[in-house]
Amino acid sequence: MEYIYADNAATTAVSEKALAAMMPYFRDNFGNPSSLHSAGQRANEALLAARETAAKALNADPKEIFFTSGGSEADNQAIVSAAKLGAKKGKKHIVSTAFEHHAVLHTLKKLKKEGYEITLLDVHENGIVTPEQVADAIRDDTCLVTVMFANNEIGTVQPIKEIGAVCREKKVLFHTDAVQAAGHLAIDVKDMNIDMLSLSGHKFRGPKGAGVLYARKGVLLQSLIEGGAQERGKRAGTENLPAIVGMAAALEDAVAHLEENAAKERRIRDMLIDGIGEIAHCALNGDRERRLPGNVNFCFEGIEGESLLLLLDDKGVAASSGSACTSGSLEPSHVLLAIGRPHEVAHGSLRLTIDETLTEEQARYIIDAVKETVSLLRSMSPVWRDLMSGKQQFILK
Amino acid sequence: MEYIYADNAATTAVSEKALAAMMPYFRDNFGNPSSLHSAGQRANEALLAARETAAKALNADPKEIFFTSGGSEADNQAIVSAAKLGAKKGKKHIVSTAFEHHAVLHTLKKLKKEGYEITLLDVHENGIVTPEQVADAIRDDTCLVTVMFANNEIGTVQPIKEIGAVCREKKVLFHTDAVQAAGHLAIDVKDMNIDMLSLSGHKFRGPKGAGVLYARKGVLLQSLIEGGAQERGKRAGTENLPAIVGMAAALEDAVAHLEENAAKERRIRDMLIDGIGEIAHCALNGDRERRLPGNVNFCFEGIEGESLLLLLDDKGVAASSGSACTSGSLEPSHVLLAIGRPHEVAHGSLRLTIDETLTEEQARYIIDAVKETVSLLRSMSPVWRDLMSGKQQFILK
Repeated sequence: MEYIYADNAATTAVSEKALAAMMPYFRDNFGNPSSLHSAGQRANEALLAARETAAKALNADPKEIFFTSGGSEADNQAIVSAAKLGAKKGKKHIVSTAFEHHAVLHTLKKLKKEGYEITLLDVHENGIVTPEQVADAIRDDTCLVTVMFANNEIGTVQPIKEIGAVCREKKVLFHTDAVQAAGHLAIDVKDMNIDMLSLSGHKFRGPKGAGVLYARKGVLLQSLIEGGAQERGKRAGTENLPAIVGMAAALEDAVAHLEENAAKERRIRDMLIDGIGEIAHCALNGDRERRLPGNVNFCFEGIEGESLLLLLDDKGVAASSGSACTSGSLEPSHVLLAIGRPHEVAHGSLRLTIDETLTEEQARYIIDAVKETVSLLRSMSPVWRDLMSGKQQFILK
Repeated sequence: MEYIYADNAATTAVSEKALAAMMPYFRDNFGNPSSLHSAGQRANEALLAARETAAKALNADPKEIFFTSGGSEADNQAIVSAAKLGAKKGKKHIVSTAFEHHAVLHTLKKLKKEGYEITLLDVHENGIVTPEQVADAIRDDTCLVTVMFANNEIGTVQPIKEIGAVCREKKVLFHTDAVQAAGHLAIDVKDMNIDMLSLSGHKFRGPKGAGVLYARKGVLLQSLIEGGAQERGKRAGTENLPAIVGMAAALEDAVAHLEENAAKERRIRDMLIDGIGEIAHCALNGDRERRLPGNVNFCFEGIEGESLLLLLDDKGVAASSGSACTSGSLEPSHVLLAIGRPHEVAHGSLRLTIDETLTEEQARYIIDAVKETVSLLRSMSPVWRDLMSGKQQFILK
């Protein structure tokens, strides 16, 4: 049986191109970029080239690119840095949204314990926050606005440029967690008024273990990891050169084919949304149009998301319920709760995140598999029986 | 011309075995270990296996192994965790040594700013701290002793088991930065009374981008990176599975051949020490016996270490002056100052760190190259002229 991987938001396979770019840095050009001898200097040249590539992909300056171990680290460092800068000026208020990734929310929670005040904006039923909400939430003591570029579960894309403009006008630092957006949506940090941005290599066919924190010139970063003087003193530890080189290659490639891939994905995504949407008592989560080209996310009444994805896995379809980072948790997705789904429905969600290689035939297979599986689960579900008998009211449709 | 790499303390080439272990995890078994589908679960099994391998190599329990992005992160997390635990009990004193890696020293510096008191023990001319010094330094309010297993510049090996016993007896947490020791010296965390230990994959032919923080059961870690529930909630971010698998394979291999490799290295190391030691007005840094099997470190009077290593590089020998992490710095090595070398001599140092593949013939080549280069540099050195004419006094020999 063919195995169809439709969980690209959790992680992607490294592309052949990215892996080929990485290979020389394991055994041949393996030097430490901080070493002064020629083996070190060759490694350092590769590091500089990767920095230029990453900068170009974001329309940033290479000096504004800091390599990290991944997206979570970049999110943590960006937020903590802005918070510390704010505290020096007596500004300890941060604006964010209710459906950020936990790398953001948990960092904010930690800051709250340290005396910061956090405003989490409502993201509405469609999963989109407005620039007006941000403008209204900013106070004289606001030191940071952090709003994700695209949501990791429901894929909704935020009006980043407009939010950036509000922040720039009000002179508040603006960070965006672009882990799901980078390599999938066009990003221009200058045009979009972004002060700090996080991305992760393994979300666009780069390797795990490398991320970027972009910080605009003039934004002073705090080290999360102290030690050597790597990354201009802002991130200690020997650079993970193979992963950095692979990430840069993958990012360059993703940006070069962005429109073309997005168009392919959108077509198949819409097939999936239409096909799965035929199931009774289900609902698409997040705005239908303003979402990532590869994201499909549904709630189904009367079933458990985990059972659904395990049965789909048996049928050869890798999907997810919620995000990988929160799997194993019995809590319903905070993202689905944030868009107003009640607990009982939020438990029955399915996320399919596709890439441009997914074919029409595979999409039809997925649609049939989802339909069959939802039917099967409902036929065994006491909740569904109660819904059908009228003992309990339907929430969806 | 053959290029002889003698800078294995800076970084190592990934072994064929480790790279072969990693390869399936880039494109085939590329799943996110947190995903519930079978692609994720296969990845998770590999993660569990790597954790068991790492635990076995240290005589620890798999639940005591936390994967990090490298040694610096592990050092930071260990020290910050112990400091926070201490503060809860009103204990804010930390004992360490003057010649720790900057990942330790800079973390301690940050804690000092937060109100912790730091005692840095003298390491003597031989580069070794004694258990008695540790015992004397421990106070009622001491929450942590952190002493490196083996120094990264001069390779001196500390009496870790005895220091651990002192700490255990006095009920103070004991952390050791074993980045240079792991894979090169036998480590048994139970026998050695170690509560926390850091190691880094790329120092023993594993890949860059993976490290281990061992924390004994009962030692509560603080997250440095907040977010998902990876590493039992203590280290957020998608696990860098290929690097973790590669590190585990390399560690297993290094431990299996530890005695055999160390014996080969010691023989060549001693050849190098004897040969280079024939140069006038030079001195071996660090205890001759109690040092890493692959470490050679000399100071030469009248020359600059950087010039020496650049000329050696031209002759096809990759060496270092100080550690890679501090290269580019104009400050003399804090390690050499800590063992009492005056500034003018500490600038003229050379570190050769070999592995078991270095041949006698290569060692002879290195000795000749060092002799020739030191001669050449001295012939052009105004300091050397002043020393020879008696205008300035020799410090060494």
